[in-house]
Amino acid sequence: MADKEFNIAVVGASGAVGREMIAVLEERNFPISSLSLLASARSEGNRLEFKGESIRVERLKHDSFKGVELALFSAGGSVSKEFAASAVKAGAVVIDNTSHFRMEPNVPLVVPEVNPETIATHKGIISNPNCSTIQMVVVLKPIHDAARIKRVVVSTYQSTSGAGKKAMDELFSQTVAILNQREIKVNVLPHQIAFNCLPHIDVFCDNGYTKEEIKMVNETKKILADPSIALTATCVRVPVFCGHSEAVNIQTERKLTAKEVRDLLSVAPGVEVVDDPANNSYPLAIEAAGKDPCYVGRIREDISTENGIDLWVVADNLRKGAALNAVQIAEYMVENSLLPWSP
Amino acid sequence: MADKEFNIAVVGASGAVGREMIAVLEERNFPISSLSLLASARSEGNRLEFKGESIRVERLKHDSFKGVELALFSAGGSVSKEFAASAVKAGAVVIDNTSHFRMEPNVPLVVPEVNPETIATHKGIISNPNCSTIQMVVVLKPIHDAARIKRVVVSTYQSTSGAGKKAMDELFSQTVAILNQREIKVNVLPHQIAFNCLPHIDVFCDNGYTKEEIKMVNETKKILADPSIALTATCVRVPVFCGHSEAVNIQTERKLTAKEVRDLLSVAPGVEVVDDPANNSYPLAIEAAGKDPCYVGRIREDISTENGIDLWVVADNLRKGAALNAVQIAEYMVENSLLPWSP
Repeated sequence: MADKEFNIAVVGASGAVGREMIAVLEERNFPISSLSLLASARSEGNRLEFKGESIRVERLKHDSFKGVELALFSAGGSVSKEFAASAVKAGAVVIDNTSHFRMEPNVPLVVPEVNPETIATHKGIISNPNCSTIQMVVVLKPIHDAARIKRVVVSTYQSTSGAGKKAMDELFSQTVAILNQREIKVNVLPHQIAFNCLPHIDVFCDNGYTKEEIKMVNETKKILADPSIALTATCVRVPVFCGHSEAVNIQTERKLTAKEVRDLLSVAPGVEVVDDPANNSYPLAIEAAGKDPCYVGRIREDISTENGIDLWVVADNLRKGAALNAVQIAEYMVENSLLPWSP
Repeated sequence: MADKEFNIAVVGASGAVGREMIAVLEERNFPISSLSLLASARSEGNRLEFKGESIRVERLKHDSFKGVELALFSAGGSVSKEFAASAVKAGAVVIDNTSHFRMEPNVPLVVPEVNPETIATHKGIISNPNCSTIQMVVVLKPIHDAARIKRVVVSTYQSTSGAGKKAMDELFSQTVAILNQREIKVNVLPHQIAFNCLPHIDVFCDNGYTKEEIKMVNETKKILADPSIALTATCVRVPVFCGHSEAVNIQTERKLTAKEVRDLLSVAPGVEVVDDPANNSYPLAIEAAGKDPCYVGRIREDISTENGIDLWVVADNLRKGAALNAVQIAEYMVENSLLPWSP
């Protein structure tokens, strides 16, 4: 990495993804000269640790970005909508973790293992894809390159951390209440999540899909730069704290054997194959939590169609699904002298 | 119903499904003259309630079936293998909840809403399908009749009760241990189930599928009497006590709109449509538990293919998925004077 160091801002620093971003920046020793932590008035004055230093969380304002060269946004779509332009105007590159800019044609939507070449085309804003999309496309990419993907049917098993810290707290408190035979409270998620599965993430669209499901469809086409890939998704919240799992069914133009898929994925960047059924070995959310790779297993030839593959993909949705992917984009920019940026 | 009453035996009476069978027999006021509760030596001497009466659990032996006209088996495949013939020899009709006889050509595999006409063809043994198959085929049947199903991709979210009372206890005790930051014990299921998802139900086959997944494939073809239906499944255990959920993707020969599917299912026997996204209304495991219907919602036209439908099916796996389905078969036999049976 370069000797240069950069002024970084993390927007939404006290949220689940914000905290993970700070942890990942520290862990990967990202070259930082100053780190400013920004959040809403509610979190102002909180202090968060970075490399042994306690940093005060400041209130996000339009003039918060003076001197900032890279701003990592993860405070919700409305905050990105309001403040990203101010960051860009101040000279920062924004890596935005919300869905706000993702489908805009002049905003690259990036998974560094899949489409790093699009990073250099940015006009100030780079979008980080949705968590459930990221872990899937990392696995789809080598399969698409080898055999062209025609259609994907995916069902997700998404943890509460994907809905933020409050949703994790709700799973915890509902679980405690049920074990103690007390009444549960439902405040964050639409229904009881403890010991239950909710086929409902984000809001509903007119066609009956949720926005989360539509994100998986549209973002996959954009990241793989192939609008011909057909995809349907059912996104489900499950009573897991961290780590998203996905059952992915893939139909390809050219036949791939399970062994060929396993071989392709064994050497794919960002992927780790965990696939030894004889020893009950397959990816698990509790084992992926806190780890970087997208784990894939249960790789098998689909017995329902000519050229089909079934597999099971698991990743830490706060890391590869959000914070890590954003920091990897930033690292790519440093390595390729794309930072600091001038419009 | 007829005035006749019958001598009934429940084999595996003290298990999760056995207890549910006793409850369903009582609740539906099945015409019983005597009820004998049979189980392994371990449960011998236990007492279970039936209509206010306390009945002693007797040890299952080959001569346990004297005078028995109907035997409901739910004590595992090896017990059915060993003892079903003795029951039939004694003159009983066996309704077997295990997978042991399901794929035998001369054993009807019955979901009363789907293929009741096969009941009369039995030769002493009638098989109850796998829980995850039952709730799916009740929903597939009207769609198949209307538009011919070509291919199904299903991902399941199966509760621990499907693995028996001990698995439910394991979910409970692991959850308590985690909340109290104590070490968890893994004895019944292959890995930690608390706050985790396991893509592993039953044993693995050579082709990478689990036996549970293959059951869904083969049993669906047999029950719908159409080997041309292509099906792939990923079966996943989730940290839910009771109620199986399923994300089902269906491709049909003829196009059906979401409204047509909703209309078809609204009048389908055994099905209840719960599908009002605007009011966050869709089927949930916690709401299906203890209820009879197969609930279906999230009905939408699949945007990835011409003639596709996505939906979400939830049922109480111990009731419709096991005990209730078995008792419904027995009720059909009573109504159609198929009991008592003589070979």
